[in-house]
Amino acid sequence: MNHADWVRKELRELSRSLGFRYTPIEEIENRITRIRVGMKKQAVEALLVIQKMNLYYVSGTTQDGLLFIPLEGKPLLMIKRELERARVESPLKDIVALGSNKQFPSLVQSHIGKLPNRLGLELDVLPVKDYFRFQELLPGMKFIEASQILRETRKIKSLFEIDLMRRAGEIGKEVYQEGRRILKEGMTEIGFGGLLEATAKRYGHEGLLRVRSLNYEAYTWHVLSGLTGGIVSQSDSPMGGLGLSPAFPVGASLKVMRAHEPILVDFGTCFHGYQADETRMFSIGKMEQKFIDAYKACKEIHDAVLEETRPGADCEAIFIKVRQLAEKMGFKDSYLGPPGLQTRFIGHGIGLELNELPFIAQGQSYPLEEGMTFAVEPKIVFPGEGSVGLENTVLVTEKGYEILTPAEQEIFQV
Amino acid sequence: MNHADWVRKELRELSRSLGFRYTPIEEIENRITRIRVGMKKQAVEALLVIQKMNLYYVSGTTQDGLLFIPLEGKPLLMIKRELERARVESPLKDIVALGSNKQFPSLVQSHIGKLPNRLGLELDVLPVKDYFRFQELLPGMKFIEASQILRETRKIKSLFEIDLMRRAGEIGKEVYQEGRRILKEGMTEIGFGGLLEATAKRYGHEGLLRVRSLNYEAYTWHVLSGLTGGIVSQSDSPMGGLGLSPAFPVGASLKVMRAHEPILVDFGTCFHGYQADETRMFSIGKMEQKFIDAYKACKEIHDAVLEETRPGADCEAIFIKVRQLAEKMGFKDSYLGPPGLQTRFIGHGIGLELNELPFIAQGQSYPLEEGMTFAVEPKIVFPGEGSVGLENTVLVTEKGYEILTPAEQEIFQV
Repeated sequence: MNHADWVRKELRELSRSLGFRYTPIEEIENRITRIRVGMKKQAVEALLVIQKMNLYYVSGTTQDGLLFIPLEGKPLLMIKRELERARVESPLKDIVALGSNKQFPSLVQSHIGKLPNRLGLELDVLPVKDYFRFQELLPGMKFIEASQILRETRKIKSLFEIDLMRRAGEIGKEVYQEGRRILKEGMTEIGFGGLLEATAKRYGHEGLLRVRSLNYEAYTWHVLSGLTGGIVSQSDSPMGGLGLSPAFPVGASLKVMRAHEPILVDFGTCFHGYQADETRMFSIGKMEQKFIDAYKACKEIHDAVLEETRPGADCEAIFIKVRQLAEKMGFKDSYLGPPGLQTRFIGHGIGLELNELPFIAQGQSYPLEEGMTFAVEPKIVFPGEGSVGLENTVLVTEKGYEILTPAEQEIFQV
Repeated sequence: MNHADWVRKELRELSRSLGFRYTPIEEIENRITRIRVGMKKQAVEALLVIQKMNLYYVSGTTQDGLLFIPLEGKPLLMIKRELERARVESPLKDIVALGSNKQFPSLVQSHIGKLPNRLGLELDVLPVKDYFRFQELLPGMKFIEASQILRETRKIKSLFEIDLMRRAGEIGKEVYQEGRRILKEGMTEIGFGGLLEATAKRYGHEGLLRVRSLNYEAYTWHVLSGLTGGIVSQSDSPMGGLGLSPAFPVGASLKVMRAHEPILVDFGTCFHGYQADETRMFSIGKMEQKFIDAYKACKEIHDAVLEETRPGADCEAIFIKVRQLAEKMGFKDSYLGPPGLQTRFIGHGIGLELNELPFIAQGQSYPLEEGMTFAVEPKIVFPGEGSVGLENTVLVTEKGYEILTPAEQEIFQV
């Protein structure tokens, strides 16, 4: 059978029967309308979207290609591979084949009758080599850094997006329930984590968490027990764990988990690209009192953040207020990491990527808005001993907040 | 306890007891010597290594930082996070703290007494925004695209590297053995794949396969059964599978696996950053004869590639020769994908990344060399029906080749 014919006839029904949700056209149109407001502000005549998550956000597909969005008129989706599949996945009408990037100018020319003078590109992630090729291909064109336009648009989530994040949060609940069923003394961190991940995947978790960065890699969980919880690594996190090697020095290790150790499980789930980030504590038998007390402090800080969470609240003000609370409770030298290594945020925006707006952090003085989603994650770290933490993903609602990660918030003692 | 003290006293022993292997100084020195040959050729006075896998290759650590390699004199490793850990992981002697990239010029100045005029950067992956910042920071400096120097150096593997790849291959064998034990009718592709992945991780698999590219994401396996094996996706692979959503339209899906379907498991393993890539076929009960015949053809093509594999053999010539064999056996329209969507390589270099040199492909006319490693992967795809394939990772030896992926090559019928 011909592949194109099969895709046209069968792909939609097969994928829908297996749980695929395609982005509706109204959703895409609304996003493009908001993006155009940002484009006008920067006097960008057209935007060329390349990075995978932005492409998904504005077209509904992650097939390999480029999306051209003129300030007026219809967007043009140019697909290298696989064209027929993109036509099923994206509700956009103008979807054409792109043999190579070289053809992009002529395709745009025949779509809108001219080439723009000022083209927005995602210069925060676009490799220099590709940029030079665009310069050769489009001599005289002015390229504008436009990633901020997409970033600003993406920070407010629609009901469609929130529903996908809620589903990711429900998968997280299954993961923690499974954790309570299977955790046993003598398992390794990575052995336990691998089974949690297998559980999540069975429910549709995609296995990647995405961070917008050259070197920050997608991996979905910390399982840290006792002293590995006290180890900081290259990641911008209060603790990083030991990991498996110098090539992957973060997250779970081959360390065997023992009774009474604090076992921190920071597990992110991803459903249709949308992420929920969550941390819970486990212990085999009762955890040492020091860690129970620190966990209670985390819970208090977590609740204090949520108490302030509503449209209009200033992100930096929340950060400062709860830091004072942590210090008052006696955790100045362990809150958000060891001295000199403390992270500078208590919450990070989350959606298609883990480092979205807003940041509940020092230096981030702007108001929360309805429809923002962020993960709040107080953590307390004792080098050589262990760490504790609590994390939930929340939505800013009209009057306050809604927690999107429904797992219970107690310590899971088995 | 102080984190730095703990790391200095305890990290090495703890990590070694849990299987960490650190890159020896002789290994690093040898790599730098070879890199400098390439630097001289391009008249690059110094190299600034940023990308994670290159940083690991030349320093032994993946902590967040920059490595400055002058043409003469000692390299300088500048670490943002986590410094003390980098000092344990890297055998380099000059390792200093880097508060932000801004400090890089003054650190270099005090290390070698001047700034170079021609600095090599990895422009194949460096984001434009970072490049602009380097331009501001170092006015008048000439930046040279230097990723090819590292690429050429990395294409020949040392015994230390080969040993890590061999270990990755052994983990793959465990994965396929587990597959034979657990595969049952009624499991979903993703349910089965998740358990295989949990098995691999238990043995130290790091869960990521790395591809040097902006949009090509790290995920480690295809589990494709029956018709999902006939679906092409955005990846440069003969088949991509259905995946879990439009945000992740590759690999295993929630489809239930049935008796007699061809079940293709393309599973990559990663040990200490070094990868082994491998494909085997499973079936529940006997596979349909059509697929058994196609698998035999794959095996024949695979063996034909290996028969040609030795130092001096031309990569393109091998590709053309075995394509003729595939056509002669009647698979012109299914070999390496459906018509119009066929991939243009039968083998890809592999090591720290999945798209290393050499490529056994059209247009890649250069000789194989001793110490190269590549994955050979003949695959045959029938849209709407399924696909089959066989893949092994091999080392080019003095007289021929060695297979690094020791799992048996029969169809695993359960």
